[in-house]
Amino acid sequence: MIKRVVIIGAGNLATQLSLALTRKGIQVKQVFSQTLDSVKELAQKVNAEFTNDLSCLMTDADLYIISVKDSAIQEVLQNLSLDKNNLIVHTAGSISMDVLNGYTNNYGVFYPLQTFSKNRETDFSRIPICIEANNPSSLKKLQELAETLSTSVQQVNSEQRRTLHLAAVFVNNFVNHLYVIGSEILLDKKLDFNLLKPLILETVQKIETLPPIEAQTGPAIRNDQAVINAQLRQLQEFPEFQKIYNSMTESIYHIHQKQPNELL
Amino acid sequence: MIKRVVIIGAGNLATQLSLALTRKGIQVKQVFSQTLDSVKELAQKVNAEFTNDLSCLMTDADLYIISVKDSAIQEVLQNLSLDKNNLIVHTAGSISMDVLNGYTNNYGVFYPLQTFSKNRETDFSRIPICIEANNPSSLKKLQELAETLSTSVQQVNSEQRRTLHLAAVFVNNFVNHLYVIGSEILLDKKLDFNLLKPLILETVQKIETLPPIEAQTGPAIRNDQAVINAQLRQLQEFPEFQKIYNSMTESIYHIHQKQPNELL
Repeated sequence: MIKRVVIIGAGNLATQLSLALTRKGIQVKQVFSQTLDSVKELAQKVNAEFTNDLSCLMTDADLYIISVKDSAIQEVLQNLSLDKNNLIVHTAGSISMDVLNGYTNNYGVFYPLQTFSKNRETDFSRIPICIEANNPSSLKKLQELAETLSTSVQQVNSEQRRTLHLAAVFVNNFVNHLYVIGSEILLDKKLDFNLLKPLILETVQKIETLPPIEAQTGPAIRNDQAVINAQLRQLQEFPEFQKIYNSMTESIYHIHQKQPNELL
Repeated sequence: MIKRVVIIGAGNLATQLSLALTRKGIQVKQVFSQTLDSVKELAQKVNAEFTNDLSCLMTDADLYIISVKDSAIQEVLQNLSLDKNNLIVHTAGSISMDVLNGYTNNYGVFYPLQTFSKNRETDFSRIPICIEANNPSSLKKLQELAETLSTSVQQVNSEQRRTLHLAAVFVNNFVNHLYVIGSEILLDKKLDFNLLKPLILETVQKIETLPPIEAQTGPAIRNDQAVINAQLRQLQEFPEFQKIYNSMTESIYHIHQKQPNELL
């Protein structure tokens, strides 16, 4: 049973995961980050010790959660000086579990499929937590820990997790960027972004009752060249938004050409 | 005061607008569509007469709402045989009010900024209804009508409406297509689209508390080339999704380069 955790990292996910574990009575004993300000801030929030030196990590925690940017995981691992039986996980969508092989006998992945902000409290209760481990006892521990946070615990291998992360980039990162573009387009003409919010909300609510392919509307699916060309002209001061408009319009048109008519 | 309306068109917007007007006690007296099946279906829903012949339109309605695809508006107008004092509006985001000039002395636009489906009932109460008219008395009538449906009635000129429609294409049509892509990517690996729903929901909920530019996360904003290149390889069987990935990634990176650091 996991009761004492060390968090390596102090970013958005590290912060929200530390807070969620603490709320469930699991002790975050120590947090590490190279950035002293960040690690102090997080340590204070969860009443933990902090360090910016990996050689100062406590060695008797039940679990070490590496939640740093993907490109820093290897460096963290190379500088850990833990016991070979310590359970270590990372939280990265796109990084294989095998990256942990050789550093300990017990390892895995603990990937909550969600977007996190430092200052927006995350409710983990319905977030799919995707877990993977290199042996049954580690898997069982991670399963129990995940179940204290969420009702949606998923055993997912590294390839499936990579796929989920790719899809997440489209439905979160790119969707959010479309909101940015919407707000930029309106700002440019001094119109209020709030006017778009009922539409943004309905766009999401629709997919609770309709598969997204059936919810598609707009000039691209109608192949309405007059509107498409006029809108591309409106975007002439935003060449990057034009590129997005073109790639989206082509893709919408083609994917719906491939669908049976009744879906249109 | 508008009490009796003729609806020209039987698509998604025509259907939901007819239903909403009827619920508020405004009579939809007659509906027109070239497609007899569609117009019969709509007429039945709102207890109206129907026709597929524009020369059979009743001539004494208080308002004629043209809600057909943009490219058909001109043709409808050319075949109307109404009195020169009849009030006529269209509902198109991208079409100037002036298209109605010459066909009647009283005209305008009635543009609800929302996405509509035939079989999903629309609650109009918070939808921005953007109105425009060629004279004060017509504007007053449209304002009163819009206020019976919604608390968010906006006087918007044709250029502003075009801008709103362009932004709407990004935050609705394109966002929905990203949901389609997410579901296609998961389907390809036999993963369940429902796993993405908490993430999709949180992505929207975030913009209630954070401007979207501050909510951005992911490999593009971090300029994480390892993840970006790996994800482009994952998409090799979906060349159109690759194009979208590239155009989004470039745009996210550049727009955030232009923002002050504290927004990152």
